[in-house]
Order: sequence, then structure tokens, then C-alpha cells
Amino acid sequence: MTVVNGYKQNDNEEKINILNLEELEERAKQIIPTGGFGYIAGGSENNWTLKANRQAFTHKQIVPRALSNIEDPQLDTNVFGIPLKTPIMMAPTAAQGLAHSQGEKDTAKGVAAVGGLMAQSTYSSVSIADTAAAGNGAPQFFQLYMSKDWDFNYSLLDEAKKAGVKGIILTVDATVDGYREDDIKNNFQFPIPMANLTKFSEGDGKGKGIGEIYAAAAQKIGPDDVKKIADYTDLPVIVKGIESPEDALYAIGAGAAGVYVSNHGGRQLNGGPASFDVLEDVAKAVNGRVPIIFDSGVRRGSDAFKALASGADLVAMGRPVIYGLALGGAEGVQAVFEHLGDELKTIMQLAGTKTIDDVKKTDLLNIKY
Amino acid sequence: MTVVNGYKQNDNEEKINILNLEELEERAKQIIPTGGFGYIAGGSENNWTLKANRQAFTHKQIVPRALSNIEDPQLDTNVFGIPLKTPIMMAPTAAQGLAHSQGEKDTAKGVAAVGGLMAQSTYSSVSIADTAAAGNGAPQFFQLYMSKDWDFNYSLLDEAKKAGVKGIILTVDATVDGYREDDIKNNFQFPIPMANLTKFSEGDGKGKGIGEIYAAAAQKIGPDDVKKIADYTDLPVIVKGIESPEDALYAIGAGAAGVYVSNHGGRQLNGGPASFDVLEDVAKAVNGRVPIIFDSGVRRGSDAFKALASGADLVAMGRPVIYGLALGGAEGVQAVFEHLGDELKTIMQLAGTKTIDDVKKTDLLNIKY
Amino acid sequence: MTVVNGYKQNDNEEKINILNLEELEERAKQIIPTGGFGYIAGGSENNWTLKANRQAFTHKQIVPRALSNIEDPQLDTNVFGIPLKTPIMMAPTAAQGLAHSQGEKDTAKGVAAVGGLMAQSTYSSVSIADTAAAGNGAPQFFQLYMSKDWDFNYSLLDEAKKAGVKGIILTVDATVDGYREDDIKNNFQFPIPMANLTKFSEGDGKGKGIGEIYAAAAQKIGPDDVKKIADYTDLPVIVKGIESPEDALYAIGAGAAGVYVSNHGGRQLNGGPASFDVLEDVAKAVNGRVPIIFDSGVRRGSDAFKALASGADLVAMGRPVIYGLALGGAEGVQAVFEHLGDELKTIMQLAGTKTIDDVKKTDLLNIKY
Amino acid sequence: MTVVNGYKQNDNEEKINILNLEELEERAKQIIPTGGFGYIAGGSENNWTLKANRQAFTHKQIVPRALSNIEDPQLDTNVFGIPLKTPIMMAPTAAQGLAHSQGEKDTAKGVAAVGGLMAQSTYSSVSIADTAAAGNGAPQFFQLYMSKDWDFNYSLLDEAKKAGVKGIILTVDATVDGYREDDIKNNFQFPIPMANLTKFSEGDGKGKGIGEIYAAAAQKIGPDDVKKIADYTDLPVIVKGIESPEDALYAIGAGAAGVYVSNHGGRQLNGGPASFDVLEDVAKAVNGRVPIIFDSGVRRGSDAFKALASGADLVAMGRPVIYGLALGGAEGVQAVFEHLGDELKTIMQLAGTKTIDDVKKTDLLNIKY
Repeated sequence: MTVVNGYKQNDNEEKINILNLEELEERAKQIIPTGGFGYIAGGSENNWTLKANRQAFTHKQIVPRALSNIEDPQLDTNVFGIPLKTPIMMAPTAAQGLAHSQGEKDTAKGVAAVGGLMAQSTYSSVSIADTAAAGNGAPQFFQLYMSKDWDFNYSLLDEAKKAGVKGIILTVDATVDGYREDDIKNNFQFPIPMANLTKFSEGDGKGKGIGEIYAAAAQKIGPDDVKKIADYTDLPVIVKGIESPEDALYAIGAGAAGVYVSNHGGRQLNGGPASFDVLEDVAKAVNGRVPIIFDSGVRRGSDAFKALASGADLVAMGRPVIYGLALGGAEGVQAVFEHLGDELKTIMQLAGTKTIDDVKKTDLLNIKY
Repeated sequence: MTVVNGYKQNDNEEKINILNLEELEERAKQIIPTGGFGYIAGGSENNWTLKANRQAFTHKQIVPRALSNIEDPQLDTNVFGIPLKTPIMMAPTAAQGLAHSQGEKDTAKGVAAVGGLMAQSTYSSVSIADTAAAGNGAPQFFQLYMSKDWDFNYSLLDEAKKAGVKGIILTVDATVDGYREDDIKNNFQFPIPMANLTKFSEGDGKGKGIGEIYAAAAQKIGPDDVKKIADYTDLPVIVKGIESPEDALYAIGAGAAGVYVSNHGGRQLNGGPASFDVLEDVAKAVNGRVPIIFDSGVRRGSDAFKALASGADLVAMGRPVIYGLALGGAEGVQAVFEHLGDELKTIMQLAGTKTIDDVKKTDLLNIKY
Repeated sequence: MTVVNGYKQNDNEEKINILNLEELEERAKQIIPTGGFGYIAGGSENNWTLKANRQAFTHKQIVPRALSNIEDPQLDTNVFGIPLKTPIMMAPTAAQGLAHSQGEKDTAKGVAAVGGLMAQSTYSSVSIADTAAAGNGAPQFFQLYMSKDWDFNYSLLDEAKKAGVKGIILTVDATVDGYREDDIKNNFQFPIPMANLTKFSEGDGKGKGIGEIYAAAAQKIGPDDVKKIADYTDLPVIVKGIESPEDALYAIGAGAAGVYVSNHGGRQLNGGPASFDVLEDVAKAVNGRVPIIFDSGVRRGSDAFKALASGADLVAMGRPVIYGLALGGAEGVQAVFEHLGDELKTIMQLAGTKTIDDVKKTDLLNIKY
Repeated sequence: MTVVNGYKQNDNEEKINILNLEELEERAKQIIPTGGFGYIAGGSENNWTLKANRQAFTHKQIVPRALSNIEDPQLDTNVFGIPLKTPIMMAPTAAQGLAHSQGEKDTAKGVAAVGGLMAQSTYSSVSIADTAAAGNGAPQFFQLYMSKDWDFNYSLLDEAKKAGVKGIILTVDATVDGYREDDIKNNFQFPIPMANLTKFSEGDGKGKGIGEIYAAAAQKIGPDDVKKIADYTDLPVIVKGIESPEDALYAIGAGAAGVYVSNHGGRQLNGGPASFDVLEDVAKAVNGRVPIIFDSGVRRGSDAFKALASGADLVAMGRPVIYGLALGGAEGVQAVFEHLGDELKTIMQLAGTKTIDDVKKTDLLNIKY
């Protein structure tokens, strides 16, 4: 155990047995301190959208297919020109030091071990370079929370580029924090420094305090910002937090190289639809122009299958991976991805789909339960 | 604590912490005497419509909007020619002395503090003039329960006019009381006098007993009554308790300057639809001819947003404000409105709407959960 | 208390306070012996249809109507040429001695006291003549469970005619008993003799045992049977147990003077639709040719309103009346009908309907909750 | 009690009282060892599809029919040219030694006693010949889990033919095992040998270990396999695990003499539709070309009726029969089929259907509860 500012970080590095990802939350709750757990697990307001994210996967069903003459389904795919061993990627998730002393470094290691794609958050507990190094050459994206301070934005983009990341995820659905009641109840303050903010404030100048930077997060984000970032970097810019066909086209028009369908895991606009319920319509509008990443509520191989069959090219997970990180460090992360991959392969076989492309061409049913 | 006819009124005047308005009911239950609490909280019969009022808000969802290039959303609006700092108003609610010794005076103060609109009830614990005075110049409406005794009606309208109220809300959905089982179970009798009735019975004549006046509440209300009241006063007359397109047009035809969509918080016709579920159709029929006020079930900023996006110009709350009143007097009332305003602003930002007009132009989704 | 064959019958004759009819079941359970209670309250199999009968009333909603300019709604109606003070009638219900020592006599008294219509069952604990006499001139129907033994059928029809009943209800949905698990669990045997069977077996001849008669209940019932009965009697014959437009027209074609929509209170075909859910379609098919009686699940004034607005001319109740009978004898029965009548009048006023005819012309909403 | 490899098998041979098949699971849980019970009762993943299988029967309702002039409904039918006394058959179910020491022998006896159709599983605890012999001439089918080892397949087909079975059920929905969490939690290993595997490994050659054979189960199954088997045997080949119109036609095109609609009792693709919910569409596509067998979730006579009315020619049950086997051996099995037959006959009478053909022509309602 590591204690930082009175906060007890786990250090476990061990294989973990996983029955399923749904049960991980309860196990993780036992070892992550209350405030940190509330920050990670909680949604906004009364968690209606958080719960809807899970329920929505029952709105469509996978038809078991027989006589499909396939075996040994394969998870590998290629998105944004990046070959991947699995379509399940790590969602950009802040402050992983809340779950484990090694934070994003262990997550990067675990993701690399399964050949997946890691996304770092602006608000990582570990610096861009350190997380990239931990990934040991495996592909990573960097997620940007845009600041009003463009020096800060450019600095992060520069550093990400330098660290070798292969894409930028620009989050646009958090121009204000959702109302997270767990954090209020726990009177939660971040005990662990955010490495990218610390570095900038202490770094190549400006002498700004972290609070100042943090407060400078941009509320006003528009297509010009997407364009500005896309123009600055030669990396693909994926716009995250898209929940409507209109915004998807708007983002692409502004230069987005990818659309990331997400409601931020139910942490932002409570009272909005489940993310899965809007995916198909967004995908129809995007119509193959750019790849689509999807997250919010994925806990089962069947969820991942349904998302892929509804238009996603990559399926991201956040919370379950963080729980795996808390329980077992890099090996816990790896186990989470392996477990979901195994579930997905079973579903693929039973649905008669040998490849991720086959999955994406699959029609689902819409029966109301 | 003040004791009136054996009933213990709270006197608390203090800031209260509010996590959300949904939890206020339980907190208020601890401090409001059983009979009073039952009267305030209860609906009619088995509370089916009361519960449907809450559930109905899940029938529509707010699409998170990205790249909308807005910040710092504003709640101010102008309805009935009255500039308001918030579209959330106080619903006319009877007998607030049940919750607090200062009753409507504190409510008026709290509402004034947030720049909202206060509506007084005919059955207020405090007189029209006193409530108006407590509001200190802030806009107020007066709600009329029509009596068979037109002297009484005219007397109240005169007094309201004299007190400077800016509109008359004529309630037409309570021509008989809904069957309120809580009141039966608690054998509830009003322990606190109703100031307007007392005043009239003791006042400029007639020598009528309060019971007589109360019993004289009109059961038979028709368009001629609306016309008669609208002719008598030069204030706008808003007809409250409209739940159908037909009645909305009928009321407007009879001279209504506004339509108030409400099922009386589930206290009247149990087995009727949730108020939110009929709002959109009523608004389509009204088609901008007059403003629309909406109440019944609003507890979240997202509820208010959905009501505004479905055709409401003003969104009223009753019970949560009474709970705030019980817990903290005028400051409790203020805190309730501030909290809902904060939630609403968060939702506005995340939905890409800078003004209340933007909200009103927003399309919602209809996904069944 | 009266003990018959070891079975304890209540003798209470007293006014009872009723909060609502939904809570009566639990109160009655305390005083009716287990076997009798199970027989009365239970449905068939796993009670799915029994529960659906209640849930179905939420499938339609009553629109509150304002400015309707009515007061003092009236329950009186005229069906089958019989003037009635209420559209709520007593459903034919077997073996009321299970609930009270006076059985059908008290039920008839209570129904007469509210000016309603009483229906006797073939399997009454009290004879036709005695029940008729207890009704003291108030209108009654006689319900026939058809026997293979036409002497028995004719004998009952003769006796009913002689006793002055005004109509025959021919039950056709019980050609075999539904599978009632409560009776199996309680190993229930009828402890109280069925007066009509006893009388016939001991009476004008034949010397048949009761078991023989009971076993002779006809399984095979067709239109010819309706015709045969309609030809034999000059009383109107109402066919009970109709759940489809096809059967309604079939029955009318065979001579039925009325259609009784019912699923036997969920006691017969479990897995069938709620009775209320088929009423509207049946009524459309009947199209006013003959009156419609409805039962199955009515516990609220709003339920009765919805049934009338969906095509019923009379609304029957069984179980709640039996519970009232158990709790208070004739006065208990009276209280049940008065309570439901009061609830219905409140709903009528709030829905802007002054007469039962107004109710029948009302359009309901169909919102899914 | 018989103990095999430390596993305690029941030996009960006795009549059992059955209230309904839904309650059998709890009773069986008391006497089947935990691991065995989990294997039998559990579905895959979080059991969503398992539960949906039950819920789906509420999606359609049986209209009670009156005046149908029928009595004494009959269960006999003729499918695949085989006269049967009941349309309810035994689903092929593995490893029945987990429930009872006599395993499939007792099941065959019980099924024979009701004149039904028995289906043996490849993974039976008892050999094909012994099970066939126990059936004493009553009709049986043999279910084949296809192996990559065609010698094994042919050997089983030969033995089945020799034993006199009348049809081959080829299971195609289990090309990989569903993810069964109960088995993981219980760390379940089959304690009872599978007779057909043992026999083959010890038998006419090859000297293969059982594990080797088991591992050789074919993952890749296509239409050529159906054709190959259909060509090899002159018995009708029914393809089991069809859940879509497309696959039904595909199977028939490949030579299937019957289509078996099943989702393997919710044990395979979790996240797929309830089997009953796809039956009607499959039946429409099949359009009478070949008979249809249906299973997954049947526990009530009404379920069987609904399946037959939705296109099934035979309705199979697995788990409830195994529970009857555990509780009472052959007599327990018989009691289960008799009970469901009795429930079905009651429903048939109330629905106005005298024969299974009448049931199959019945239209159901689709009301959403």
C-alpha cells in the first residue's frame, strides 16, 4: 500500500480470477478508498442514464446462427490504420492513481499485453511519456480536455506526439462537470496529483498554479476548436462525446478523423439516452466516412458484439478496467481484457461470425423485454 | 417551534445543504407533523398518477450536444411580460403554515431572492397582502379557488390587485377534492387557519363562517366563469389544471391569458395520465397563442429542461419548495430554487443550450426504458 | 361465529370503515378460514392473468377535464330496461357461505340498499328464493352453470323465474375448472352445502346425489344451448365469459340479450389477456346491439370509469364484495358499493362527466407506463 | 443413494406430488448435489436469455373461447409419421446421471408411460442401447453432438439405428459451450462417465481417450455436415438450435427433415432472444415444409399451447423432467409429463380447442404487459 496525501493506493500486482466484469465493481469497492471509488463508479444525479446504459443492451438481441461453418473466431482488427489484436480498447479514464499506485502505467502494460489500444487521459495520474513508455511500443491515443489556455493544449499535443501516440481524442461532452452526487456525499477532493497539469505548471514556463489550469478548462467548444487542433497535429483527431447524428456530421465536417459515441459512462448529462441506444443512428449518419469508437456500459462480450454490430469499430471500457487495475495491477488489467475477449469470442462463434468484420455486418433483433 | 391548535410548526431559518430535491421529502418527513406531511406529500387514491408523474420524465431523453460553442447558460426569461431570473416558479400551494410558522411569507422571500415568480394560493395560511409584502416587490400571482359566492371571489381579486400581483391563476381541476387516503388515514383536519377565508368571514361584512365559505367552493365551473373573472380583472387570467388540447383551446377561447398544465401533483384524478405526458400535445394545440405553465413531478434540472423543451414557458414546483421551507424557512426555499437552477444550468450547458429560448427549441428523444 | 362441518363462518353484522377496496383482501384474510379464503382470492396456475387484470387498468388513462360546467354527478342508469341507482353490480359469485353465515342473503340486502343489481350463482350457499326474498324487491339476475341434465337446468330457470329475477346469466367460460393452485395447496373441499344443488337432489324427484349433479356440469356448451335456454325462458339471457369480438357476435347470433365480458377474475384460463384489455374490441364488435356487463379486477372508481368508457354498460365486482360481506355482513356489502360509488363520482366530476352516459362517451388515453 | 466418484446420485423411485413445474426446481435443488444442480439449472453468463425464455410467454396471450361446443380435448398427435399420445416430448438432455442413478433409463421409462417421445443425448450417462431398451418399444430420437471424428459420428448413428431410434437430432447451436458461470463457481467437473464416449473409446477400436473424443467435438458445422449425416442415415435428421428463418430454410435446404427451434435453454448465446419470441417467424418461413420442434422455457400447459399455436408441432422440455427424475425416478418423470398434459388439456378446453391440430390453428393476442 502506498499512502499519498492520506489516500491509500493499492499496489497489488497479481493475477486475478474473473467470473465476469459485472461482479468486479463490488470487489473493487472493498479495496479502493470510499472517495476514490465514488469518483470512479458514480454517475451524475440519480444515475438514471448510468443504469440505462446497461439496460439498453437488452433492447437488441443477437440471433444465434447455426450451420455457419466457422470455427476459431478472431478478434484482430485494423482501425485508423492501426493493427490491433482486439477491438476492445481502454477508454480514456482520469486519475487512475485512485485505484492503484502505478496508475496508468499498469493500465498501459495490461492493455499492451493483449494487443489492444490504450487511451491516456489529460487528467492522468502519470505523465504522457511515462504511460507511453510503460506501453512498450503498443499503440496509444491521448485524450485532450481542452483548456482555454492554448499553450497548455499545444504543450500536451506536442508531448503526446513526442511520446509516439497515434491519435488524439478530443472530449467535447464535458464542458461542465455532470452533477456527481457521490463526490458531494463523499466531499471528494483529488488526493493524487495529475501529472500533466503538474508538469505544465512547473515546466517550460508560465508558472501557473494547477488550480488555475484546471479552472481554465474550456466550457465553450466549437467546430473551430476541432479544426484548430486538427490543423496543429498530424495525428487523427477523434471527437468524443457524440450522441447524435447531427453532431457526428458536424464533427466530421470540422475535421474529425473519428467519432467517439459516449455519454461519458453516465457521468455527464443525466436524463439523456443510453449511449448504445443512439449508436445505430449515429453510425447510419456517419455511413463509414470515419471510424466509430463506442463506450458506456460495456460489461459483457455480448455488449461488445452488439456495439460492433450497431456500427462501432472499436469498443472502449473504462470502469471495469480500473477495477481490474485496483485488484491486480497490470495483470488485473490484462485479465479484464482477456475475459471480455473470451466472452466475445464465444458469442462470435455462436453468432456465426469469424471476424470482427463479420460481426459488424450482423443484423440484430429488436424485441422489447 | 410554534404550536397552533396543538400543531407544531417549525421556525427554522437557516441555510440548508441540498444534495438533490428527491431526498428532501424524507428529510422533511422527520420534522413536519404526520398529518401535515400526509396532506402535503400524499396524492389521491393509490398514488398511481403521483408516481406516473415522476416516471413520465424518463419517457423522453435529452440529447447531449457537443461543439455547440456555448458557455455560461442563462436562466432568465420573460413570460407574461414579466422579466424573471429563472423559469422555475413557485406553484400555488395551500396551507404552508403546515410546514413552517412563517408559511407563505418565507416562501415569498425565498422566491424573491432567486428572482422567480411566486404564486399564492387562495387557501394560504398568510393573507394576500402579507405574502405580497414579504416578496418585497418581486412578482407574484394569485391563485383563485372559485367560490359559489362571487362576493368572495371579487373580494379576493380586489385584494390581490391591491397587493400588486401580476396575474390570476384560476384553478379548475379541483371542483371536488381527489380522494386523498393519507388524510383519511391520519384523520387530518386543518389546524392552521386560512388567512383569506378568515379575513373575508370577519371582514367587510357578511358575517359568514369559514366553514360556510369553504363549503361554498364552486363545483360547477365553466367557460363563463373564466370570462366573468377575466372581465372583472385587468390582470392576465391563467387557467390551471388543463390536461388536454381540447380544454386548452376551450380555456383560451373563454379568455384565458395562459394555460397551466398540471394534474395537481397527482392529488386529483388518480388514473389520469402523468402531466408531463400530455404537455407536448397541449403545447402543440396552444401553438404559442398564450404562455404555458407546467407542474407535477419536477424534481430535477433535467425534468425542468424536458418540460421547457416540450412546450412549457414556466415550470412550477410545489412540494420540494415546501420541504425546503420546512427545513430552513426562506433560506430553505431559496436553496431549493438555487439547487434546481444549478442542475438546470448544468443540463443546459451539456445540451448545448445557452438560453431558455434555446431550451424551448430543443427536440427530445423518445426511447422506451 | 357459526360452525358448519368444522368450517367457521363469520356472523358479523356491522358497519365497516373502508379506506379502499384494495386493502380489503388483507383484512378479509384475517377472518375467513384459509381454505375458503384461498378459494375466493386465488386465481388459476401462477395467477398471471389475475395480476394482469389489475395492471391492465393502467393501460388507459382518464383525461381530467376542466371547465365542463357540471356538478353533482349521478350514478343512476338503466340497463336491460331495469332502472338502477348505480352501474356497479354484484358479480355472480359462488358459495358465499364461505365468507359469512348469511351468505347471499346478506349480499342481496347490501346490494339492494344501494339500488344496485344482484346476481345469484347456481352454486350459491342460499337458495334462489331465499336470496330473492332477502333482496326485498330489488332487481336480481340468476347465473346458470349449465348441467348436462336439462331437468336441472329447467328446474333452476323455473325457480329463478318464480323468484322474480329479471335476467339469466349463462356462464360459458367454465366448461372445466381452471387449475387453482390455492385449492390444491389447501386441499380445499366445499364445507358448506350449495342450496340449489341440495334442493334439486332432495326435491321434486330424481333422487340424485349432489356429487352426481355437480359432476354433470356441462363441458360441451355451444350456441344451441344458448338458443335452447333463450327459447325456454322469456327472461333476457346474458352470456358470461366472452373475451373476443368473435364470441360476442356468436353469442348474440345465438340469442344472447347481453354480453358479459369476463375472464372469471383470472380463475380460468391463465395465460389469457386481462379482461379489460379485450373489452374495447368486444364492445366495438357488439356495437350497441345488446348491453355489455364487464368484470375482472375492478377495485377503484377509476377502474369502473375506464370500463364504462371502454364499452361496458354495467360493471360487476365479486371478490371485494365478498370481503365486505365477511367483514360486516349486509352492511359490509353496502359499504363496499358505497365506497366504490363515491370514488366513481369523484372521478366523474374530475373527468367532466355528469351522467353514466357521459362516461360512456368519454375517450381515454393510451400511454404506456 | 449411489456414490460415483464421490458424487451422490439419488435412487428414489416413487410417485411425486406436483403442484406445478415451476416449483420443481427448488425441490430438486434440495436433493441434487450443488455441482450437478448448477450444471442442470444454470444458463450462460448472467442468465438474461434464460429468464427471457420464461418472460417471453407473456408476450402472447390465449383468448378464452366460449360456445365452442367441445369437450374432452385430446393430446394425441402424429409427427414424423410417429403416432404420439402427447405433443410434449423429452428434450435431449446430457448427463442425467447427475440427477438420478438410473439416469436416461428412468427418463425413457417415464416418457414411455405417457406415450411421448424420448430424445437421448450424445452425452447420456447411459448407453444408447440401454436407454432404448428401457423405453420398451416407445419411440425415441437420438441427439448427435457432431465430432470432428467421423468414425465416432458414424458409430453413434449406427448404434442408434440398431437400437431402433426413429430420428436423429443434430445439435448445431453448441459449436462452443456457452459461458456457464455456475459451473465456474462450482468448479464443476463431470463425475459420471458418459456412456457413449466410454463405449467408443473402449470399443471397436481406436483406443482413444474420452478427453480426446470430447475435445474433438466439431466447432465448424455447416450444411455439408447436415447433408453428410442425412445421406448416411435413412432416419429423419432434425436440426436443433435454429433461431432464425434464414437458418431454418438453410437447414431444410441441406436436407433437414425437421427444424428444432431452441436456444438450448438459455445455456448458449446469452444476449440472444427468447426462443419463443422467434418461433412464429421461423414457423412462417418453414411454412409447413417440415415439422418443428420447440423448446426453451416451457413450464406451463399454457406455454405449450402458445408454442403449438405459434408453429411448433412438438414441444420439448428438459430441466423440469430432470427435476422429476431426481425426485422420483421414472415415476417422477411420468408425473411431470402427466401434470403438464393435464394443464394443457385444461387450457385446450378453455380455449375451445379439441385437438392439437385445433391448437395449431389458434390465433394468439399480442398485448404488452
